[in-house]
Amino acid sequence: MRCCILLLTACFAVCHGIRLAQTPMPLPTTTTTPLPPPILTAARTTLVFDDFPTPRPSMCTDGTSKESPLGRLRSAMRNKSYTQMNVFFDAIIIFFSDEHLSEEPSKEERRLEYFSRWDGPGTGVVMGDGGAALWVASGDVRRARASVSCAWEVIDADNLSQPIIPEWIADKIGRSGRIGADARLTSVNEWQLLSTNLQQMGLTLIPTPTLLDQLWNEEIDPDLRRPDFSKIVANLHVMEYTGLTWREKITKVRDELQTVGADAMVVTALDEVAWLLNVRGRDLPYSPLLKAFVVISTKEVRVYAPPGKLSMPVREALAVYNCFTNNCTRVQEYTNIYADLRRATESKILIPAAGTFHRGASAAIAQSVPQAKRLQLLSPIIYLKAQKNEAERKGMAKAHLRDAVAMCTVLSYLEKRGSSGQTEITVAKMVDMTRETQAGFVSAAMKTLVAFGANGADPYYVATVASAKRIYTNSTLVIRSGGQYDEGTTVITRTVHFAKHPSKEQKRAYTTVLRSVAALATLQWPSALPAAHLDPLARAPLWASNQDYPHPTGHGVGAALNRLEDPVVIDYRQDVNLHTLREGYYITTEPAWYEVGKFGVRLGNVLEVMAKPHAYFRFREATLVPFEPNLIDEAMLTDYEINWLNDYNSRIRSVVGPELKAQGLLDVFYWVFNKTVPYELHSKRKMALRSAADPNLNVELLSMLAMILAYLLA
Amino acid sequence: MRCCILLLTACFAVCHGIRLAQTPMPLPTTTTTPLPPPILTAARTTLVFDDFPTPRPSMCTDGTSKESPLGRLRSAMRNKSYTQMNVFFDAIIIFFSDEHLSEEPSKEERRLEYFSRWDGPGTGVVMGDGGAALWVASGDVRRARASVSCAWEVIDADNLSQPIIPEWIADKIGRSGRIGADARLTSVNEWQLLSTNLQQMGLTLIPTPTLLDQLWNEEIDPDLRRPDFSKIVANLHVMEYTGLTWREKITKVRDELQTVGADAMVVTALDEVAWLLNVRGRDLPYSPLLKAFVVISTKEVRVYAPPGKLSMPVREALAVYNCFTNNCTRVQEYTNIYADLRRATESKILIPAAGTFHRGASAAIAQSVPQAKRLQLLSPIIYLKAQKNEAERKGMAKAHLRDAVAMCTVLSYLEKRGSSGQTEITVAKMVDMTRETQAGFVSAAMKTLVAFGANGADPYYVATVASAKRIYTNSTLVIRSGGQYDEGTTVITRTVHFAKHPSKEQKRAYTTVLRSVAALATLQWPSALPAAHLDPLARAPLWASNQDYPHPTGHGVGAALNRLEDPVVIDYRQDVNLHTLREGYYITTEPAWYEVGKFGVRLGNVLEVMAKPHAYFRFREATLVPFEPNLIDEAMLTDYEINWLNDYNSRIRSVVGPELKAQGLLDVFYWVFNKTVPYELHSKRKMALRSAADPNLNVELLSMLAMILAYLLA
Repeated sequence: MRCCILLLTACFAVCHGIRLAQTPMPLPTTTTTPLPPPILTAARTTLVFDDFPTPRPSMCTDGTSKESPLGRLRSAMRNKSYTQMNVFFDAIIIFFSDEHLSEEPSKEERRLEYFSRWDGPGTGVVMGDGGAALWVASGDVRRARASVSCAWEVIDADNLSQPIIPEWIADKIGRSGRIGADARLTSVNEWQLLSTNLQQMGLTLIPTPTLLDQLWNEEIDPDLRRPDFSKIVANLHVMEYTGLTWREKITKVRDELQTVGADAMVVTALDEVAWLLNVRGRDLPYSPLLKAFVVISTKEVRVYAPPGKLSMPVREALAVYNCFTNNCTRVQEYTNIYADLRRATESKILIPAAGTFHRGASAAIAQSVPQAKRLQLLSPIIYLKAQKNEAERKGMAKAHLRDAVAMCTVLSYLEKRGSSGQTEITVAKMVDMTRETQAGFVSAAMKTLVAFGANGADPYYVATVASAKRIYTNSTLVIRSGGQYDEGTTVITRTVHFAKHPSKEQKRAYTTVLRSVAALATLQWPSALPAAHLDPLARAPLWASNQDYPHPTGHGVGAALNRLEDPVVIDYRQDVNLHTLREGYYITTEPAWYEVGKFGVRLGNVLEVMAKPHAYFRFREATLVPFEPNLIDEAMLTDYEINWLNDYNSRIRSVVGPELKAQGLLDVFYWVFNKTVPYELHSKRKMALRSAADPNLNVELLSMLAMILAYLLA
Repeated sequence: MRCCILLLTACFAVCHGIRLAQTPMPLPTTTTTPLPPPILTAARTTLVFDDFPTPRPSMCTDGTSKESPLGRLRSAMRNKSYTQMNVFFDAIIIFFSDEHLSEEPSKEERRLEYFSRWDGPGTGVVMGDGGAALWVASGDVRRARASVSCAWEVIDADNLSQPIIPEWIADKIGRSGRIGADARLTSVNEWQLLSTNLQQMGLTLIPTPTLLDQLWNEEIDPDLRRPDFSKIVANLHVMEYTGLTWREKITKVRDELQTVGADAMVVTALDEVAWLLNVRGRDLPYSPLLKAFVVISTKEVRVYAPPGKLSMPVREALAVYNCFTNNCTRVQEYTNIYADLRRATESKILIPAAGTFHRGASAAIAQSVPQAKRLQLLSPIIYLKAQKNEAERKGMAKAHLRDAVAMCTVLSYLEKRGSSGQTEITVAKMVDMTRETQAGFVSAAMKTLVAFGANGADPYYVATVASAKRIYTNSTLVIRSGGQYDEGTTVITRTVHFAKHPSKEQKRAYTTVLRSVAALATLQWPSALPAAHLDPLARAPLWASNQDYPHPTGHGVGAALNRLEDPVVIDYRQDVNLHTLREGYYITTEPAWYEVGKFGVRLGNVLEVMAKPHAYFRFREATLVPFEPNLIDEAMLTDYEINWLNDYNSRIRSVVGPELKAQGLLDVFYWVFNKTVPYELHSKRKMALRSAADPNLNVELLSMLAMILAYLLA
């Protein structure tokens, strides 16, 4: 029977054109304690140490060698064939991102990593006369220091007592000099701020669009060579998922442009491009995006991407051939955007300003548009994209259902196999490979982050070969991950513990974080409430225990787009962000308890904003993965919270249960069943249960019975 | 024994120089159902109808009569001896407030009431050629319409579809004309906005400082005659209450001025004047304030008040005689402030900008200071004053203790006497007169607002002879009031019900509002949280029932100063107000459930901000009056809330109990005891109690007993 279900599932998938997982689906077994799915076993034995970076020597070889990227950059700064102008540079600034200011740029865009070996976000400065420094966020300082050679100084960009870039440069070379940087790779505001600050120190910021790329392109060391641009074509994101044609979306955007008095806009953020054109690409590591610019004007729609990057169905859908109206698209070479903007005939062009996660247009894009024509505003696509339509909401539900199957499979497997032999890195692999087995899977939506014990108490922890802990049964394991599926994007955080009886402290932390999840999930609110104001509700249970977490409580989530999506961020410290929630927005709630040096608890769900009568809203969980009953101290929950938890568990059973059965994952099905047993309300609790739990009550009970017996006998 | 206690209390009060209440203290009786305190009986029989305004005719007599204030104003607009310049006016704008922009101006400042008969806040416009209109807040429209004659049009100032003042005037007289108004009586921002808007319509706003006053001063009708300025002198607010000398406060203000680069400031708000000089006057109806301006500069301190208004101890404390240093005060005539500012020698003078309740300096004050010297900023005194020191906190505790005695006395009396013969107005009188019996009582802190049944569902309801309901046992009674005591200011709202078993709907509403009070009262939060962000926590229990209230949740409270004090307002709709709470701030929490057409529930406590370790804060209730157990549905409360309520009740018993005994109010003491019986936690609830309440459980219990008996017999 189970095989039948499996076959039917496969057949259903093929018949409906759904891409089957590349790896075979785990076969259900008939033994009482089911064996782990074969794929997981395979993963365990082969993948444990395969992606560990080789430890780097801490000698400043790149600081002294003429052939190192750093050495080559230093000589290029004084070489006209690189600077392409009649000037030398005293320093070069290296930005982290791509021309779209993506949060996670692709490999061939990671110039900062090529020169510094630091693979995270940050800004580097290399002086011609020696000295190099890297500014990174507070949470990244430790890891950045471990990555770079001693030729680099690592500076905490969040520490106000540390020098900022212009100060540091001025301190090295005094009050005159020329600084080069690539204006394509930073936002217009950041560029202006940098330029002004440098100017105040007597320094001049000069755009050097090709210097770094030229050096990297000429690299001959195969380990350092610049990777090729991805050749994978972008595919059509079909109406079943999008709910709107690209022409309908263009019309909406044109309406918005008219409202603000613009006759054109440049679309620079890649998720906006993908949303607008109904295409999905593979150009970025964790988002299904195509690297392209779009210019929308009242007269035309221009797409800046190599024609070879658009699949035939995309080209047909976008009507790219013989396009001379405003109802088709003209495809131009990607690099032509700057020259085209310079000679644009439109009179007022909207240049996207920085939003919450969206950093807006790059300085190079903004500067290409003549000053008088610029209208710097938030992109209107932010709001159109955030409010998911029926088709997108169905897709999100499907993606979360598959994600729930994957996560329940991993968690049940881990629980059965326990800690034996696992490390943070093998668990991360296991999560990634299990998600891959789901139909519609495209890629991970983020680097899977696994932290055990004390590592879980660091909110910015990323496991490395040096730091990765083995998993034991004495502490909590935090797993953060997300998936990109054809239908939608998921992100989920769960904390588990492999002992039957976690410590009281751990249960208290877990239950408090769960109460925080419940606080948002059960909230109903009037539509005028700014999203940031939800934050104290989520944090109040933690504050009551003198606990807090340094990151936002939550953020918007895209539909088969970015994991972090504008405009919403739920953070009381970001007061300027007064965006309200709207029906069809998806946001995360990710409260955490970090017990420094001991353990961490973090739980993350995606919530969908649902409309209610009288302009009120409520949430519904998109994520459907059980919480860990062993870590829940029932006595700490209120009846309101127990009701919510029971409802949530019953939705998991009724929605995820059938899918698990359909995929033949009966062992996972039973695991889910066990994790979703309803809790009894305090007000409805039975005597029998309580007498067992509460020794004091036994005395009361006995004395009552004695009285009754005495009465009966009398 | 009881008499002894009473005598001792009186003796204690006399010995310690505490002013005894002017009315004799109610004598405790020895009957089991104690008689009402004599004062209350007296009040009932004599005061029922004494302050009802006589109903006014709705003919526009004042619109047509030449001798009415309106008629006299119309002719004065074209009479040079009134306009004091060579121009006529086409319209005159009448503002509501005094030269300090006080929220509740004294009787002789109520120019708007003299001309329009409307006694609340608003703005009037009188056209020379006929027509007059009154702009009032939404909630006041109905009452304003009932007050004014048909010569007046009443316009909802909150309704965006209604004309604003300049539009209305332009509509009457077309696009040219001269409009007069008294710049001393409105804020600089409001004046500028009005002036700009009028200008856009071709109209000119011209200051007419004396026109309205001159007309009122000449009034001969004894009913309308302008009341005399209060002659009551201002007294010293002693160190026991202030904790700081006026010189220490001046030093703090001078430090703040130095920080912002000013060498002087004008103190215009009366509570700031009183706080700064450590004086308390009787010039305003609900706040113990002295009408005066102060100018602080690095060189001197000038007080603008008639010398006769300062008591001898005040003059001595302020060192007003032969003052030639910066460490004494020079007293000037009140009206000299404007001329003095015009010729001030200081180079940068801080002019208070509008805060939350504080409306900042008047236009006339600002305009008196040469433009280049003006520095418009929030008054630094706002923050110094809001953060109460140890002495002030002790005083607030004392005031609230006495207030609790008064409120418990009224509530217990009302409960015993029930509804028989009472109306909203007699209850309000009873509250006022009972508060007066407390030592240290100065005045009410607000008009006492009592609303029964459907009237309680209107948040802006003010009882009038026409609207006042009789009190029955079938609905809720909402009582809002506050007291000014020598030691501090109180404000409290309680809702009661005189039936043993209020309806399920009423209990649900009351318990929900109580949960909202608990949500703030139990909160602990990091110091960086803006106060406005507390609001969703308070409202969440109401939102969950699709309920909300249109007013803020709470606001700052002064210490023997204003009931409404800057800088804090707890309102999610006032996002721009991002002030944080600090240790020693006092705020109110006043959530409400308005069931339109049926009943209202509103509960209000004053909360004190207490510091905790690690820059966290918590609240402690300053108000210590029990909630109504008959209106509480225990099943709706969580154990967290029950714990809070039990703690609160136990504090009431231990703090208010002894004071009631000391004042010989044993009947009230027992009433308090009955209202503060601890609730059992759901998790600790006894079988016996539950079996009585829950019929289902009896069956379970019986079957269990049967099983036990069967076992014993076997």
